[in-house]
Amino acid sequence: MTAESSPLTIAQLAELAGVSTATVSKVVNGRSEVSSQTRAAVEELIRRHGYRRQRRRSTPTALVELVFHALEGDYPAEITKGVARVAREHDLTVGIADLHRDRAAADTWLEGVLRRRPSGVIAVFSGLTETQHEHLARREIPLVLLDPADVPARGIPSVGAGNWNGGLAATRHLLELGHRRIAIITGPDSALPSRARLDGYRTALDLAGVPVAPELIDRGDFLIEGGQAAAHRLLSLPDRPTAIFATNDGQAVGVYHAARRLGLRVPDDLSVVGFDDMPSVRWTIPPLTTVRQPLTEMAAAATSMLLTLAQGEPLPQSRVELATELVVRDSTAPPP
Amino acid sequence: MTAESSPLTIAQLAELAGVSTATVSKVVNGRSEVSSQTRAAVEELIRRHGYRRQRRRSTPTALVELVFHALEGDYPAEITKGVARVAREHDLTVGIADLHRDRAAADTWLEGVLRRRPSGVIAVFSGLTETQHEHLARREIPLVLLDPADVPARGIPSVGAGNWNGGLAATRHLLELGHRRIAIITGPDSALPSRARLDGYRTALDLAGVPVAPELIDRGDFLIEGGQAAAHRLLSLPDRPTAIFATNDGQAVGVYHAARRLGLRVPDDLSVVGFDDMPSVRWTIPPLTTVRQPLTEMAAAATSMLLTLAQGEPLPQSRVELATELVVRDSTAPPP
Repeated sequence: MTAESSPLTIAQLAELAGVSTATVSKVVNGRSEVSSQTRAAVEELIRRHGYRRQRRRSTPTALVELVFHALEGDYPAEITKGVARVAREHDLTVGIADLHRDRAAADTWLEGVLRRRPSGVIAVFSGLTETQHEHLARREIPLVLLDPADVPARGIPSVGAGNWNGGLAATRHLLELGHRRIAIITGPDSALPSRARLDGYRTALDLAGVPVAPELIDRGDFLIEGGQAAAHRLLSLPDRPTAIFATNDGQAVGVYHAARRLGLRVPDDLSVVGFDDMPSVRWTIPPLTTVRQPLTEMAAAATSMLLTLAQGEPLPQSRVELATELVVRDSTAPPP
Repeated sequence: MTAESSPLTIAQLAELAGVSTATVSKVVNGRSEVSSQTRAAVEELIRRHGYRRQRRRSTPTALVELVFHALEGDYPAEITKGVARVAREHDLTVGIADLHRDRAAADTWLEGVLRRRPSGVIAVFSGLTETQHEHLARREIPLVLLDPADVPARGIPSVGAGNWNGGLAATRHLLELGHRRIAIITGPDSALPSRARLDGYRTALDLAGVPVAPELIDRGDFLIEGGQAAAHRLLSLPDRPTAIFATNDGQAVGVYHAARRLGLRVPDDLSVVGFDDMPSVRWTIPPLTTVRQPLTEMAAAATSMLLTLAQGEPLPQSRVELATELVVRDSTAPPP
């Protein structure tokens, strides 16, 4: 067989391959839940005939929808800035939605999305279910996950940060200052970025020959209150830590408050490292040493990926990770 | 003449009144730049015949556009939450734009708005020019200003907070604690909310029989850095103030830093009052006494007004002010 002149649509490819259009759609969108044989067969057909994205049932609205699991703090502004920057270059409106950490709100929002048919959706920290992902896929509304809490299901493209490297860098910084009793306050167990930061912490200790003390690993919820409670427990240990890696900036602020209540000074009595580098933590007292996560750039990258998908182009890679960077300010010092 | 059966469109009213459609439009939209005679004549015609909003040239998109002069800090999230709450009830998408304090960005954004024909526009702190307002009016795209920096031009509806009352309450709180050397750091001179807070401060001092000391009135820019610089000047005065009313939360954070650099403790050596009650200032050290401005509720009110206008209904009032409230935390104490 020689190359055909006109590329085939998903429906035509499905017919030739003897599989469903959904399966072909999964292959062309680089998703993973297709057997390797089927994938190979479809890819071979595409190689031979070419592939042409089907015309959509209706023109998508020139709209990128940005959905937050919660509109809180300065995190939404940092992300929206990045999305707006890329959207403006392409004359797209940025739509914003707030799920209030609420599953029912997500369903209502999704109904609206399917009606509006935006150019694409960026879900921040996710909170969407697999069923919701599938609804979008079925309507060919591209989806990119930004800083996802879970493993992106079935090859859905995502943008994250170098969380493991950040955890490593934060812990190494404390080790280099001479700390040995270094505690960590993680986020929720289910949040992968938190797990990666914890693993970076463990590896840094391990490489330095410092045993990981289970009592120095406590858990928060990525909110200030949770960080404060965890820090209170850690700082009440008989052999209390001289440094705490708080794994996000909110929890670091909670650590400041716990320390203050216990009469401990930062950094004289206790070193604290955050994660995120939100604009506000340049202005905590003392200014926070933290790991910068380039949220605005991550959001811009997610938007560019979304626009590529919306134009029916394949992504060079379905997972993009931007580097994190340690920012040393005044909350870290040698141990007392 | 007796009442006609069918209400008239703007074009028909204009013909009857012998004025332009723009003039009739101004009257029905409650704008002020119409002579009182013309206004009376048009209103009399409406009373007799009734008024029916003209069909728009195209259906507006089910979109509320929220435009910020700058996407910074937690202020955008607080406002977006309120807009999203009302928009969701009406199945409207919330579009968000960032003007970067930049006039050229506003022009580009406006071109897009005129093309998209949203249900309406909410401009935060404004930054839009009168010409830009007029472009929207000409296309019958309703506009509501939220927390406008300037006097809303020509009867454009707006939502603000009780800034004067807030300034009064903040200053009275300091007076009641026994302070007499009370300084104020204002925002930019051109920002009306700042002027109103300053006037509330003056009146509180006056009512308490405390002379207003010109050297205790300094100016900032509503940003942390400006507050810090102004506080540094005030705290370097030979007879330095024992309290500073910072007129927004960002400037209050700047005051904390200036005090810290000069070795002054808050509130032992210096009392500080902010304005806004951003979520983050519950977590400053010490937690900030401030004047709560109900931004989320203000945003919800602005959105409701916008939807009323979008349905062609008149507004019961073109200026809505929500009450502010003093929130006493740990940054204020009797003078040393």
